[in-house]
Amino acid sequence: MPKKNAFYAQSGGVTAVINASACGVIETARKHKSDIGKVYAGRNGIIGALREELIDTSKESSAAIRGLLTTPSGAFGSCRHKMKSIEENRAEYERLIEVFKAHSIGYFFYNGGGDSADTCLKVSQLSESMGYPIQAIHVPKTIDNDLPLTDNCPGFGSVAKYIAISTREAALDVASMCETSTKVFILEVMGRHAGWIAAAGGLAAEQEGDAPHIILFPEVAFNREKFLAKVKRTVKKHGFCVIVASEGAQYKDGTFLAESGLKDAFGHSQLGGLAPNLAQMIKDELGYKYHWAVADYLQRAARHIASQTDVDQAYAVGEAAVEMALAGKNAVMPAIVRGEGKRYRWSIVEAPLADVANVEKMMPRNYITRDGFNITDEARAYLEPLIQGEAYPDYKRGMPKYVRLKNVMVPKKLRKSFKV
Amino acid sequence: MPKKNAFYAQSGGVTAVINASACGVIETARKHKSDIGKVYAGRNGIIGALREELIDTSKESSAAIRGLLTTPSGAFGSCRHKMKSIEENRAEYERLIEVFKAHSIGYFFYNGGGDSADTCLKVSQLSESMGYPIQAIHVPKTIDNDLPLTDNCPGFGSVAKYIAISTREAALDVASMCETSTKVFILEVMGRHAGWIAAAGGLAAEQEGDAPHIILFPEVAFNREKFLAKVKRTVKKHGFCVIVASEGAQYKDGTFLAESGLKDAFGHSQLGGLAPNLAQMIKDELGYKYHWAVADYLQRAARHIASQTDVDQAYAVGEAAVEMALAGKNAVMPAIVRGEGKRYRWSIVEAPLADVANVEKMMPRNYITRDGFNITDEARAYLEPLIQGEAYPDYKRGMPKYVRLKNVMVPKKLRKSFKV
Repeated sequence: MPKKNAFYAQSGGVTAVINASACGVIETARKHKSDIGKVYAGRNGIIGALREELIDTSKESSAAIRGLLTTPSGAFGSCRHKMKSIEENRAEYERLIEVFKAHSIGYFFYNGGGDSADTCLKVSQLSESMGYPIQAIHVPKTIDNDLPLTDNCPGFGSVAKYIAISTREAALDVASMCETSTKVFILEVMGRHAGWIAAAGGLAAEQEGDAPHIILFPEVAFNREKFLAKVKRTVKKHGFCVIVASEGAQYKDGTFLAESGLKDAFGHSQLGGLAPNLAQMIKDELGYKYHWAVADYLQRAARHIASQTDVDQAYAVGEAAVEMALAGKNAVMPAIVRGEGKRYRWSIVEAPLADVANVEKMMPRNYITRDGFNITDEARAYLEPLIQGEAYPDYKRGMPKYVRLKNVMVPKKLRKSFKV
Repeated sequence: MPKKNAFYAQSGGVTAVINASACGVIETARKHKSDIGKVYAGRNGIIGALREELIDTSKESSAAIRGLLTTPSGAFGSCRHKMKSIEENRAEYERLIEVFKAHSIGYFFYNGGGDSADTCLKVSQLSESMGYPIQAIHVPKTIDNDLPLTDNCPGFGSVAKYIAISTREAALDVASMCETSTKVFILEVMGRHAGWIAAAGGLAAEQEGDAPHIILFPEVAFNREKFLAKVKRTVKKHGFCVIVASEGAQYKDGTFLAESGLKDAFGHSQLGGLAPNLAQMIKDELGYKYHWAVADYLQRAARHIASQTDVDQAYAVGEAAVEMALAGKNAVMPAIVRGEGKRYRWSIVEAPLADVANVEKMMPRNYITRDGFNITDEARAYLEPLIQGEAYPDYKRGMPKYVRLKNVMVPKKLRKSFKV
């Protein structure tokens, strides 16, 4: 049997370290040239496979592939394209397998979150029934840290570090100025349904009374009166109040504080505007001068202050995915396991995809203080190891050196084009 | 004559490196103990002097003072309190001199922007006429980079570096996703009247066509049609469009795009909300999916990625201020001069405060491209040296180690309190 090629695709929102996983996949595959042919990457994720737009990563130098380790975003492009169920859109799955067949692709590495774990599982199931076996391995990635079975998700540690540092820095700024100027500062952070990123803001505090004084989690129903009372108490006590607010913060009835009415391709509501809404609420009720920041893409692209732990883990899951494929595994995901003991240790194990797909891991209730406005010591113990180490990129003329790939396309083999 | 003490105060919006200037002032004064007694710092800036709330910096260890070099924000507190003209509020100036006299303060180091240069000058003039001579030295600081006579302002280089890096990182993110998701990304940056910070976003581009595709400067009247046409052309050509917008962007008639109606103590309009306004405009007219970020305090507090050049210069102006005081100077400001030749060199000279106060240095027109939407090579040549070098702070448990001073207060000597 001739050796099979591999297909790698990036899915959903990109991160500061998803390219580190790509680096892990490609470098490990290159070490096993007798078993794996070429690694093709989907141009703009899975739609690259559907459109037969494959990037030949073998055209990239070792240095360029190494450069992925320190380059944020998705070097091959990503997409927000959710594959529907097989019943609803069998044609898409069949096309995928047709393309894989045409290019002798036997390994499918899908680098994404919960939705792509689901797609990955379906591809594996369908390929079997279609008589063209594909080993489908999911490579975990999500800044939301909401995948089950893995202790944490690559991509999260770096956002966490960025948000924790930014909160500490901005809080020092507000503390300096609060006597005559800004009393309330709000930092809006990502996290649609799970408050992991907002929780990371809590790492900014070193001792009792330190900022952030209030964290708004999606997991805790927003109570306007309780919130405003807490803001007022905090300003009275400390002279200022720093708030880290998850974009997913919501009222008891599930209405987001920031709802804009738009929905994305996955059917998720598009959010934004929470920080100005909260600021207005505070201004109207308490009259405090405020400032607000919305970190948006800055937080998930901030490779300049990535967590070394996160980079190491992102690489490791890419590497492990290839090793699992070589070991004949299918429909699995490399998951991170935290060791016992005080010193943080981690290793990679195999998790069955059937248990990963479409499950969101929320913040445990004991990670949130009783009043719902901050993190507990348990949360701190969980979060802190994930932001350890500063994985600085190299710089040239004052700017980080991020790699640009050539992204040479593989000649198409299929006659039919496919509309995505 | 017994040796005089010194008074140091931080004024206006703080920066990532204003504490480095404080470090320069205090360390240099400590080296000249035979000439300068203690360095007192104003608690919350100049109002600390008016209220006789003086911090005794001699109570801080050498290590703590050294820690200021890597700590953002104002370690003694700053304030937005503009001293009115002597005619309007002579009592404030007299109080200041009364406090200085009571604490044998003969040196006044005022660390701020244009408004404080003006105050500094007035204090020097009035003290003379009141028969209690004070040597008043202005230590330049402003992220806005709008002081005259100095080639650049300490505080700016670090914001510039942060904005340039953030723009490059976010642009990579958008480029990865634009095929199926966000087409337009807007980063709102500070800069009320001068577009220096927005211009720094331009350093994100390495080659023709790179982001940012559009920069909005306060210096260029905003033209809605021209702007929208440029966004459309850019998305058609590159698939996405990255915009760096100064909060000071304004229409031809001087109306800010972001005006909120509020004014601060200096009488400046309080801005905010530009990015969502622009995003809505683009959505309504062109229908593109957008994301926006507002960096707000994050940009001026981002000590974690400060420019080494900026840190060096911030320290140097603090050091030079003390040296000028020791040389008997009065009503001057240490200014940065750029050397001739290709390699960037800088030195410190003495600038007369009379020429500094209340003058804003705008971007020269030849720093902005003819279409008004980007920076020229001249701008790049000016800006690039200012972001050289990464002055990383030390880290502990994944977080930057920022110093906390003890801030021990000097016992009051005056009977009368003073309402500020």
